Amino acid sequence: MNFLSDTTAPAHPAVLDAVAAANSGFAPSYGADAVCARVKARLCEIFETDLEVLFTTSGTASNALALSVLCPPDAMVLCHDEAHIHRDERGAPEFFTGGGKLLPLKGQHAKIGIETLQTTLAEWPSGFVHTTPPAVLSLSQLNESGCTYPVDEIAALARAAHGRDMTVHMDGARFANALVSLGCTPAEMTWKAGVDALCLGATKNGAMMAEAVILFPSVKDRFARLQARQKRAGHMLPKMRFVAAQFEGWLQDDLWLELARKANAMGKRISEGLAGIEGAEIVHPTQGNEVFARLEPALADRLREAGAGFYGWPDGSARFVASWCTQGEEVEALLKAARS
Amino acid sequence: MNFLSDTTAPAHPAVLDAVAAANSGFAPSYGADAVCARVKARLCEIFETDLEVLFTTSGTASNALALSVLCPPDAMVLCHDEAHIHRDERGAPEFFTGGGKLLPLKGQHAKIGIETLQTTLAEWPSGFVHTTPPAVLSLSQLNESGCTYPVDEIAALARAAHGRDMTVHMDGARFANALVSLGCTPAEMTWKAGVDALCLGATKNGAMMAEAVILFPSVKDRFARLQARQKRAGHMLPKMRFVAAQFEGWLQDDLWLELARKANAMGKRISEGLAGIEGAEIVHPTQGNEVFARLEPALADRLREAGAGFYGWPDGSARFVASWCTQGEEVEALLKAARS
Amino acid sequence: MNFLSDTTAPAHPAVLDAVAAANSGFAPSYGADAVCARVKARLCEIFETDLEVLFTTSGTASNALALSVLCPPDAMVLCHDEAHIHRDERGAPEFFTGGGKLLPLKGQHAKIGIETLQTTLAEWPSGFVHTTPPAVLSLSQLNESGCTYPVDEIAALARAAHGRDMTVHMDGARFANALVSLGCTPAEMTWKAGVDALCLGATKNGAMMAEAVILFPSVKDRFARLQARQKRAGHMLPKMRFVAAQFEGWLQDDLWLELARKANAMGKRISEGLAGIEGAEIVHPTQGNEVFARLEPALADRLREAGAGFYGWPDGSARFVASWCTQGEEVEALLKAARS
Amino acid sequence: MNFLSDTTAPAHPAVLDAVAAANSGFAPSYGADAVCARVKARLCEIFETDLEVLFTTSGTASNALALSVLCPPDAMVLCHDEAHIHRDERGAPEFFTGGGKLLPLKGQHAKIGIETLQTTLAEWPSGFVHTTPPAVLSLSQLNESGCTYPVDEIAALARAAHGRDMTVHMDGARFANALVSLGCTPAEMTWKAGVDALCLGATKNGAMMAEAVILFPSVKDRFARLQARQKRAGHMLPKMRFVAAQFEGWLQDDLWLELARKANAMGKRISEGLAGIEGAEIVHPTQGNEVFARLEPALADRLREAGAGFYGWPDGSARFVASWCTQGEEVEALLKAARS
Repeated sequence: MNFLSDTTAPAHPAVLDAVAAANSGFAPSYGADAVCARVKARLCEIFETDLEVLFTTSGTASNALALSVLCPPDAMVLCHDEAHIHRDERGAPEFFTGGGKLLPLKGQHAKIGIETLQTTLAEWPSGFVHTTPPAVLSLSQLNESGCTYPVDEIAALARAAHGRDMTVHMDGARFANALVSLGCTPAEMTWKAGVDALCLGATKNGAMMAEAVILFPSVKDRFARLQARQKRAGHMLPKMRFVAAQFEGWLQDDLWLELARKANAMGKRISEGLAGIEGAEIVHPTQGNEVFARLEPALADRLREAGAGFYGWPDGSARFVASWCTQGEEVEALLKAARS
Repeated sequence: MNFLSDTTAPAHPAVLDAVAAANSGFAPSYGADAVCARVKARLCEIFETDLEVLFTTSGTASNALALSVLCPPDAMVLCHDEAHIHRDERGAPEFFTGGGKLLPLKGQHAKIGIETLQTTLAEWPSGFVHTTPPAVLSLSQLNESGCTYPVDEIAALARAAHGRDMTVHMDGARFANALVSLGCTPAEMTWKAGVDALCLGATKNGAMMAEAVILFPSVKDRFARLQARQKRAGHMLPKMRFVAAQFEGWLQDDLWLELARKANAMGKRISEGLAGIEGAEIVHPTQGNEVFARLEPALADRLREAGAGFYGWPDGSARFVASWCTQGEEVEALLKAARS
Repeated sequence: MNFLSDTTAPAHPAVLDAVAAANSGFAPSYGADAVCARVKARLCEIFETDLEVLFTTSGTASNALALSVLCPPDAMVLCHDEAHIHRDERGAPEFFTGGGKLLPLKGQHAKIGIETLQTTLAEWPSGFVHTTPPAVLSLSQLNESGCTYPVDEIAALARAAHGRDMTVHMDGARFANALVSLGCTPAEMTWKAGVDALCLGATKNGAMMAEAVILFPSVKDRFARLQARQKRAGHMLPKMRFVAAQFEGWLQDDLWLELARKANAMGKRISEGLAGIEGAEIVHPTQGNEVFARLEPALADRLREAGAGFYGWPDGSARFVASWCTQGEEVEALLKAARS
Repeated sequence: MNFLSDTTAPAHPAVLDAVAAANSGFAPSYGADAVCARVKARLCEIFETDLEVLFTTSGTASNALALSVLCPPDAMVLCHDEAHIHRDERGAPEFFTGGGKLLPLKGQHAKIGIETLQTTLAEWPSGFVHTTPPAVLSLSQLNESGCTYPVDEIAALARAAHGRDMTVHMDGARFANALVSLGCTPAEMTWKAGVDALCLGATKNGAMMAEAVILFPSVKDRFARLQARQKRAGHMLPKMRFVAAQFEGWLQDDLWLELARKANAMGKRISEGLAGIEGAEIVHPTQGNEVFARLEPALADRLREAGAGFYGWPDGSARFVASWCTQGEEVEALLKAARS
């Protein structure tokens, strides 16, 4: 009954198989190998556009690298107050941008509303030398409350951002979970809605350590700078094929979507199960593989005693994360303990 | 006949086996797992001291992280003019230290001589507000010309550095190659000789992506800061067990030493073979797995035509790197092509 | 009728006289001269403690330098959402701290309340490697809404901050205005209440370009680092005597207090005058030389047509700043225009 | 007999008069005032081109700000090993560029030779992701050994730099001394020879604290970024008129050239005088107001006992600096003491 985080889960066997398959003979270093090339081609297909991509081994690295080519040192990133980049990355975006600022915005369910964005933009002018100008809008999809932005909301937010010559960054640590939840295409959820750069995470959804920074055509001209930043940050691995190979295994036969569907389904069962239990209240819509529930203390204690692993969240709720390998039996055991 | 770099080699099967073995069930994230703990214990044994360690996925990351806790932003690192940290890391040390300076020192065979160090220290005072003070001495072992510092040279250099309240950093991307070449113990080549922090590389010697930053007792109190820097730089991987596992496989049954011996033996054969060939001149003592030879153009062309892969070096020489999986047949084929 | 800012005012003649007096013969560079020493001694008297001080030429520089020795690169400064360091310094604190974070807190009249501080501290733990820890509490006195923190409020906030091993920074760009408004001593308003570092501004209150960073005994051990930062930031002027001399003239015969009283008195007259006028509403208590009034559009237009200079503020109000040289006639003219 | 540095000299009375003249009534802040505009116009005349300019209060600030818009964080500045930016600014360029690198080049009399530049450029490629690319060539004029680069040497160096898409920065802390020494026009010594950005110093030549960063038309498009950097670094003074006024007084009636000629003349007398004295050897051509002499210990002692102030230089020589207010009598006294 481990619902602590999808980062505590193992990797899917197909991912390891792909790594083993890549471990054959000599190969060019630093991303110039054939596996990297094949994965790039596959991502172009999946996203239906001519994108640029590089690989990293952590979501924090991906986000910070992407932001470092979108936000100058004397500019700022607008993000939600609950955003992972603001709360959980120990200042990595500030470090990689060379002292850029994150401006945290409030909003229910960890979502930035269009009015909030517009008000903020009105408050923070561009071109006024004394004031840090907004340069990037960062959206998490799936977000930190387990919710999705529908495609039209992304498009409206992106339009407002682009209207101020800002770019739009998507933190997709749980991109696949959001994608299968919304039922749209990868292209629709990103560049077609105005997203300029995407951090696509595989680690939480079945890989060992595999993340991708994707630049869509609108910002592709920044790719050389991104590579220089990657090198400079120690994220250009000598034997990059072993990261790309994880993606290869993960994308093959739509495994990534299958794993996300499984995790979401388990999330849904947890959410619906807890919703019907006295002393538990679901505090955010469950739109992926994360469930946030306010639990009465006695209920929380009972679950912990029964061996359930979950984190207390800063807002007082409890977070349950289903992963690609969460078993139905575990969910049943959790709900049984809750009901007893 | 690939002698381009040990980074083009695959990983040793035992390393992949260890990764597969670690891929079992849920495990704590971010380095709190059992594999990480076991590897730390093993390193304490190997280095005969109570050290602190964290894992990264590139040598550039290791070096930059180590330097970031040794060198304040307004101080500097003394290194050789050929040092990897100066020539080949795109300013990663400058980035991670927050604008620290690298001062390149000249010296034959990519080695810093004690007189050069002393002269430099005399030129650059500490405690003078206008001048960037030396804070760290960085030594590469094996170094960028394929040479070793004997233990007594390390000790003399470290004494001079410590006399100015500096710390000593060792870039050990090819640590095992130097170690088996000198025939001393890991402790003798590091903290017993005055090294404060070691970047121990496994990637070039049989791993996929596995590097360790080791703080010896003299600087262990900086470990919490090092972890914060690791997080902030995106190098604290969620599923860290998969990096530690590579070390576990690599260290087991002294595999790391065996692989280094193999690579060095092949390096020696290349070096001795080329030395006897008209038109080739060995320009640095071959003390590990790297051979630097000045080749007459016709000879270089002949080798390339025969399919040999090697890099032209900035000083005009050709670099041949033997890896753990370089075969005797390949070396023979190289030498045969050279002789013909 | 210039009420735009106290930075548009000229310097007091006594300040220029002191500069001229300092312009005699050769003197040691970079702050080692006699004028600097005299001003330091005078400040020790005024603040009744053995402080360290250095001089800069802008308030932004003072704040950023002070914060750079109080806040590590991977930590953060808590400040009000309206704070000058957050809104009006183009990311200088982020730059000087090497990527530190500012966390903006809400609160009426640009004041941080003790409950807000406590809630925030509970949300942002220290010692958790993933989260940026709070390191500094920054208070503006006089603040950005023209209000003061009474001494007991400063003490309560400082106690909470110190309880988390944070330090307390005071942005005293208008320190003298707050001091004479509260009627306490400089010591009471600073270190006796728990302030660790003070940025004391003279520029807005009669100097040309003269600011001081004061470290009280609790953080005096950071002075050498502060000097290194000052040098590194280009703020250690070769002929520092000319900045110190401005302080000498400004502090002599309590001129600084006299000028602040004048400016405050004019502020009070503007505030009281506007308060009685139809279409004007004072939105913050006037506790110094700044007045914030919500004006009906017709009234605002009338004032501007009459030649009054003032800024529209982001919250929709109008800001009127009285300076040391604001004349009673100007205030009368303003109020007359308002009434007509 | 103070020959320590031109920074220990007072300001010329005309500079203070100009400051007093500027101290009249209200004026726009942050450089938008009439004095700033007049000085800009005057500099356009003097340099015969449509330049952009901003003012700072230290040479270190000027250099670092200029370099911050010329050198990206992951690139580097080529400078002489003796350059002030490398030796005497405590890492300010590294700080302002966000971690850019300075590569020190050797060369007699603190001058970079064209062959050295070409060799260095060949060693450090651009466009190779692993290597820090050269972005700026920095020349000091007058340089740190008191020597000048003739116009044709500047042009040749600049051509080589531009051939690699680098820009050329001139550290003109003693610009006027070099200018009158060479007898060319300001335009000839700068943009006509390929200089893109100039740091023009007045402080050492009669001002209190007045330096200018000048962008010539080739890099004028970076001016908005330069202003943002100035603000962010705390160098955009609220009452900027008082810095600009110093320039106004200094430039008026060619005072700046007159003062430089005086200082140079005194330098020449010192140099010629010492050259004829047993136990003294002039080690660099005296081409401005700085004299470097190797003195026998007994001679050095004798001078110090007689009350002469001068610094021992790292290379073992003694540096004597003449300033705008050095008197002939002082020089005579020095030489008399030397001869006795």
